[in-house]
Amino acid sequence: MKFEWIDRGSPTSVPGFLAAGVTAGFKRSGAPDFAMITSEEPETNFAGVFTSCTFAAAPVQLCRQRVLHSPFLRAVIINSGNANACTGAQGMAAAERSCEIAAAALGIVPGEVAVASTGRIGVQMDLSLIEKGVALAVPALAADGGNDAARAIMTTDTVPKAAALKVEIDGRTVTLGAMTKGSGMIAPKLTAPHATMLCVITTDAGISNAALLPILADNAKDSFNRITIDGDMSTNDTVLVLANGRSGVEIRPGTPEAETFAAALLALMRDLARKMVMDGEGATKFVEIRVLHARSVEDAKLAAEAVGNSALCKTAWFGNDPNWGRVVAALGYSGAKFDPGKCDIYFGSIPVVKDGGDAGTPEEQLLDTVRQREFTITCDFHEGDGEYWVWASDISYDYVKINADYHT
Amino acid sequence: MKFEWIDRGSPTSVPGFLAAGVTAGFKRSGAPDFAMITSEEPETNFAGVFTSCTFAAAPVQLCRQRVLHSPFLRAVIINSGNANACTGAQGMAAAERSCEIAAAALGIVPGEVAVASTGRIGVQMDLSLIEKGVALAVPALAADGGNDAARAIMTTDTVPKAAALKVEIDGRTVTLGAMTKGSGMIAPKLTAPHATMLCVITTDAGISNAALLPILADNAKDSFNRITIDGDMSTNDTVLVLANGRSGVEIRPGTPEAETFAAALLALMRDLARKMVMDGEGATKFVEIRVLHARSVEDAKLAAEAVGNSALCKTAWFGNDPNWGRVVAALGYSGAKFDPGKCDIYFGSIPVVKDGGDAGTPEEQLLDTVRQREFTITCDFHEGDGEYWVWASDISYDYVKINADYHT
Repeated sequence: MKFEWIDRGSPTSVPGFLAAGVTAGFKRSGAPDFAMITSEEPETNFAGVFTSCTFAAAPVQLCRQRVLHSPFLRAVIINSGNANACTGAQGMAAAERSCEIAAAALGIVPGEVAVASTGRIGVQMDLSLIEKGVALAVPALAADGGNDAARAIMTTDTVPKAAALKVEIDGRTVTLGAMTKGSGMIAPKLTAPHATMLCVITTDAGISNAALLPILADNAKDSFNRITIDGDMSTNDTVLVLANGRSGVEIRPGTPEAETFAAALLALMRDLARKMVMDGEGATKFVEIRVLHARSVEDAKLAAEAVGNSALCKTAWFGNDPNWGRVVAALGYSGAKFDPGKCDIYFGSIPVVKDGGDAGTPEEQLLDTVRQREFTITCDFHEGDGEYWVWASDISYDYVKINADYHT
Repeated sequence: MKFEWIDRGSPTSVPGFLAAGVTAGFKRSGAPDFAMITSEEPETNFAGVFTSCTFAAAPVQLCRQRVLHSPFLRAVIINSGNANACTGAQGMAAAERSCEIAAAALGIVPGEVAVASTGRIGVQMDLSLIEKGVALAVPALAADGGNDAARAIMTTDTVPKAAALKVEIDGRTVTLGAMTKGSGMIAPKLTAPHATMLCVITTDAGISNAALLPILADNAKDSFNRITIDGDMSTNDTVLVLANGRSGVEIRPGTPEAETFAAALLALMRDLARKMVMDGEGATKFVEIRVLHARSVEDAKLAAEAVGNSALCKTAWFGNDPNWGRVVAALGYSGAKFDPGKCDIYFGSIPVVKDGGDAGTPEEQLLDTVRQREFTITCDFHEGDGEYWVWASDISYDYVKINADYHT
């Protein structure tokens, strides 16, 4: 399958979508902090997956209602600087009121507006800032505004993250675009109508809400749910997909076209997931951990996630230290069932552990690998056909600095 | 129950135990790195609990055999600088040979010697260093050598950790002493005959191996298993108790005397557990996380451990940041079942969250608490009678420095 990636692609690379990013005043810095994405098509289908945190923020609760009850979604508003989490009934009312404010300005109904928030937990929303954001964003909505929107949703992110691609389905071109933010409190476990990563995806494919949701949920498992920056899951993680049908390509479940669409969507989501890990708070490394031939996928997942979340592995990566003992320890306490005497481990393609013991590779030979910005650690249990992989960042001095100084 | 803590107490505060700490050459620094503790009583009972890591180190495997097969234990040797983990059959043979070397020098049988190791994983033991350690330690064995031994087992520890106390049982005085090490790779899950924390406990109580093991295992759950420095569990965690019976007090299961003995042992183990967290790698904080009124103890445990292991909470503590949003997020993703709308949270005795939302306490009032070296975070779910607590350290710049530079 061939995808054509669009240079500087964003949600507005997709025909029929407009976006803006403005400064409403949520951030003290004066940086852009309010984004709006709208669809020109009245009947824009959608789906969403959200954090599985018990303390789901008010905007997450509202978005879940939209997924359950709204046939269409015309607009998404996102503020950065206040998570509207742990804000009780007042926070819920503020989320609803935010949608009403945006709906009134756009001439649509509130049920067609979704809201997402990121920032400090436990602070009530200042609705005057939403009013200001909407007032500034609506006239600024533009067919090339996607990258402005991507910038406005950043928190500790150092770069805006957006992408878009084209795929041929049924002889016609379908475009998918997306933006995301998130560099801390990142270990999403997105579950369908129940991830502070925020992601808005747009497409001009035509697809029903019911057909879109399982594709989104499955793809989340193979993209955002595979990444870990700090092992902390947010109260606000939200991924929304809007499909306006403008391409004229209709995607029906179980068809080859649906498979192509799902694959294109997955490619886009993985690109953004990779960008999030690359821009993880203080991150200097991107490490792919692959577990092969485990007794089950679940065993492989336990093992890969334990290595990806290990503070000792992550600090070793930061230190360019080829210390495989910490990998072994993490595999050992992961809860995965395996025979340690059969375990092989590779850094890149170089064996470091053979049959559970030192493979005898001189440490100097490993240094070239672990000094790279990106490398892979492969653990082969030689037991079954269970496989899993995760993408992880390291823990650096800057990780500590950012999180000892910053109020999330 | 009254315990009399002994000033500068150590394993040799207990009558009938000798110890030494010498420099065998495992550490490049030339610091003491080999410890020996011996009992003068031929019939010294014992018990042990060990790491539940799948990659259990060779000395751990050997100690498990001792627990299963040896009626008595007369000596424990401990080296610091090489973990003898992931060393296969050669490592196992080296652990056995180490016991033989010590047994020959002490005139006892190898089955009465246990070995524990800490340090680098994946390096074969240099038995000439064991020979040197034994040759130096045997003549140095002394009734006041406990603190020397405690110093010799240190790795990244900044202070030696030892303690001893006396308790009156049945009208007579029983003494318990202990030493421990461990400041990184610390989140022990000690399970009976299966914790790189190393701990050797001595007592002059008389108690059978069969009676001692369940008391030790229960106490481990309420002490060492309650601490987390970095969330990483070691391949080498080992806790051994030696009981020489010299006090003349015989402890029988199910008696009030056994309860008193167990309580004294728990007090000693908790004292050492606290010292380990206080001396955690780079640690500047000691935080007790208490979860109250959860639906079950298991729910309380999930919630407390999630907060204690959260990288975002730990960096906030380092930053003196009263950011309860990170506590809420960790509770939310912990897997514990609770109603977020009923959750109250306190920093020290100051309410920060009431009914799942901001309790309205001005941040300045919280600063006094979070700036302290030690403070408590209490989460009250108001649901049932499940309770749990853990002790955690923070994540500082020094944590990263120690672990990006040091080969464990």
